[in-house]
Amino acid sequence: MKILITVALILLIVTANAQQSLWGGEEITSPEIHEDHTVTFTVNAPKASEVKISGDWMPPEGWIPGSVSMVKNEKGTWTYTTEKLEPELYGYSFSIDGFRTLDPNNAFTTRDIATLTNIFLIEGAESELYGVNDVAHGSVTRRWYKSPGLEKDRRITIYTPPGYESGIESYPVLYLLHGAGGDEEAWISLGRSTQIMDNLIASGKAKPMIVVMPNGNVSQKAAPGEGMRGFYKPAFMVPGTMDGSFEETFTDIKSFVESNYRVKTEKSSRAIAGLSMGGFHSLHISRYDPNSFDFVGLFSPALLPHNADSSPVYSDQEGTLKKQMENGYKLYWIGIGKTDFLYKNVMAYKDKLDDMGMPHILRESEGGHIWKNWRNYLSEFVPQLFQ
Amino acid sequence: MKILITVALILLIVTANAQQSLWGGEEITSPEIHEDHTVTFTVNAPKASEVKISGDWMPPEGWIPGSVSMVKNEKGTWTYTTEKLEPELYGYSFSIDGFRTLDPNNAFTTRDIATLTNIFLIEGAESELYGVNDVAHGSVTRRWYKSPGLEKDRRITIYTPPGYESGIESYPVLYLLHGAGGDEEAWISLGRSTQIMDNLIASGKAKPMIVVMPNGNVSQKAAPGEGMRGFYKPAFMVPGTMDGSFEETFTDIKSFVESNYRVKTEKSSRAIAGLSMGGFHSLHISRYDPNSFDFVGLFSPALLPHNADSSPVYSDQEGTLKKQMENGYKLYWIGIGKTDFLYKNVMAYKDKLDDMGMPHILRESEGGHIWKNWRNYLSEFVPQLFQ
Repeated sequence: MKILITVALILLIVTANAQQSLWGGEEITSPEIHEDHTVTFTVNAPKASEVKISGDWMPPEGWIPGSVSMVKNEKGTWTYTTEKLEPELYGYSFSIDGFRTLDPNNAFTTRDIATLTNIFLIEGAESELYGVNDVAHGSVTRRWYKSPGLEKDRRITIYTPPGYESGIESYPVLYLLHGAGGDEEAWISLGRSTQIMDNLIASGKAKPMIVVMPNGNVSQKAAPGEGMRGFYKPAFMVPGTMDGSFEETFTDIKSFVESNYRVKTEKSSRAIAGLSMGGFHSLHISRYDPNSFDFVGLFSPALLPHNADSSPVYSDQEGTLKKQMENGYKLYWIGIGKTDFLYKNVMAYKDKLDDMGMPHILRESEGGHIWKNWRNYLSEFVPQLFQ
Repeated sequence: MKILITVALILLIVTANAQQSLWGGEEITSPEIHEDHTVTFTVNAPKASEVKISGDWMPPEGWIPGSVSMVKNEKGTWTYTTEKLEPELYGYSFSIDGFRTLDPNNAFTTRDIATLTNIFLIEGAESELYGVNDVAHGSVTRRWYKSPGLEKDRRITIYTPPGYESGIESYPVLYLLHGAGGDEEAWISLGRSTQIMDNLIASGKAKPMIVVMPNGNVSQKAAPGEGMRGFYKPAFMVPGTMDGSFEETFTDIKSFVESNYRVKTEKSSRAIAGLSMGGFHSLHISRYDPNSFDFVGLFSPALLPHNADSSPVYSDQEGTLKKQMENGYKLYWIGIGKTDFLYKNVMAYKDKLDDMGMPHILRESEGGHIWKNWRNYLSEFVPQLFQ
C-alpha cells in the first residue's frame, strides 16, 4: 500500500510542462519503428485540415525537402507509415496547415543553424557505427582555450578515447572541422562522431586517437547559446568565415592541444579533416603549414572562389601544394557526392592535383551535400589514419 | 565581384532544412527581448484561428501552465508582448489551434522528461549567474564509469573548475543529484550549473571545486538518447528510482571520482546535494554513510512514504541520523518553496530534526517545485561549501 501511495505521490513530482504531456491526452509513440524497418509517425491535431510530414529520406522537391500528406482518423490523430527505410540516422518535421513544427512526441532533435529537426535511427549494418553500442566509451569534453591570434577565449570540443584518463600513453590527433553554419557542436550532434569513434576503436578498425572539434567561425567564441551573446537566432553567414583568419590562427588550437593533452606531436600522428567549409579550411591549413599533417581529409570541400588577397594563407597555392607534396604525406583523401553542387569544383581540383602529380584518393558517393555522406566519409577516413 | 559570387555560392552550402528557414518567409526574431525587459513573441501561422502562448512566468491554472491568446495581424503573423519580466531563465511554448508547439524561430530548448520547452534569459542582477559571462570557464565532460554495484557502465557529467587540467592542486567535490524524470544532463541544462559555478568561482564567492552530476535512475545507463536504448520516449517513472539501490551503490561513484580526479578525500572536502528525488537520495546517502559529508543540501527534497523494507539503506533512519549528528558536519541545508506540494513533508522533517537537536538551516523561498528555486538554492548553497 505504501508503495502505491509512493507511486501516486511521485507522479506529482513533475514540473508543469511534463504534466501537460503526461495528462494532455492519449499516450502516443512517434516515431514507431517497426521490425521490418517501416516507420509510423503519429500526431494529434484534431483541428488541422492538412498535416504533412517532411523527411530527409524523401526525394527533395528542388531545394525544398520532399513531403507527403498524413491521414486523419476519426479522433483527429494523423498518421503516416513509410516504406521500408535503410539503416540510417534520419531527420523529419511536420507541417500543420502550413506551419512547420516538430513531433511533440519525439524529444530528440538536432540543430542546423537556427532550425531544429527531429531525428530517429534505423538500426542495421549501415548505421551500426551511429548507435551507442555495448563497447568502451570515450569521453567528450567541452572546454575553453586561449587563442592569442584571435584575441579571445574560445570553446572547443575534445573526444578522448577509452582509457585516456587512466593511462600514460600518448595518442595521435585528428582535427575535425565543421561546415558553414556549424560550430563546435556540429560533429558531435549531426555527425555522431562520438559514436563513430567509440565503435571504430572498439572493433579494432581505428587506432585510439584524440579528436579535436574546434569552432571554425572566427567571429564566434562559442556555439550559439553557449557564449556571451546568450540565446540569439543563429545566422548562416558569420563574418570572417573564409577570410584566412581561421587558417592563420589554427596554430593556437594545435599548441593548446599539444600542451594540454598526451598527444604525439610528429607529423605522422596528426590528421586534419573537415566538411564543406571545414574541407576548405583543411585544404588551406595543411598546405599553409605544409609539413604538419600526414593525413588530410576533404569531405565535400567548399572549393569556391574566395578573396585571395584577404590573407597570406591564400597566396601561392600551387607553390605550397607542391611543397606539401615534396614534404610527403600518407593520405590525401577527398570525398564528394555525385549530386553535390560542388561536384564540378571538386573534380576541377582533382584534375589540378593530377596535373601536379599530387597523390590523392577520390571517393565518389551517391547523394549530395548532406550529413549522411559526411558521417560515411568520417567512418571511411578514420580507419586509414595512423596505421 | 569575386566576393559577391562567394557569398552567393556560400549561401548554397546549407542543408535542406536550414534553407527552409532561410527562404521560407520573412525573417522573424522571436523572442525579442526589449530594453525595458518586456518580451515580444512572434509566430507566423496564417491559417490558424487561435494561437496561445504559455510561459512559466504566468500564474498557473491549477496544474496546467497559464496561457494567453496572441494577436493576429493582416499577414497572419501572431504576436504577444509581456509585461516587464524579472531577470530569470524562462520557458514557454505555443499552442496553435490547440496543438502544443515550439517557437520555430527559437532554436534553444530544454528537455524535461519527454517534453521540449523553448527558453530565453532576461539578464539582470538576479540572473547574472545563469549567463555565460566574461570569466574563466571550467570544463564539462561526459564520461562513463564502471558501477560494480549496478553491474553496468554508466554515463556521468563532471564539471572541473578553470585551471584544473593544467594544475596540480587537489579540489573538493560536490556531488549534485537530479530529480525524478531527470538524468545526468538535468543540472547542466535546466540547472545552468556550469554557468553558476563559473560565475561564483570567478567572483570569489565559491571555492574552486569539482561538481559530479551522476544519473540517479539505477535502471538507466545514460540519459535518454545517450545510451544503448537509443532514441526512445522518456518516461517519468523509471524502475528502482527510490528502492535504495542508488544510495547503496553510491560508493561506486565516489570511488570512481576519488581514483580518477585530483580531489581531496577528507570529509571536510565532500558535499552532497540534490533536488526533489535527489534531495531524498542526498538525505539517505549522507546518513547511510554517516561520516562522509561535511555539507549536505536538500533542495525541495522528496520526503515521501517509501518502502522501508526495500533496502538496508532505509532501516534505522533515526539511529543513523543521530550517528551523523554525533560524527559532526558543517552544514545541513534545506531549501523549500512555500507553495511546494512537499512543503508540509519538509516541515515535518524539520520538526523531527529539531526534536533530535540536529542542527540545520531551513531556507523558505517563494514558489513551488520549480527549477527557478533549484538554481537559486544551488547559488546560495555553493558559496557556503568548503569554507
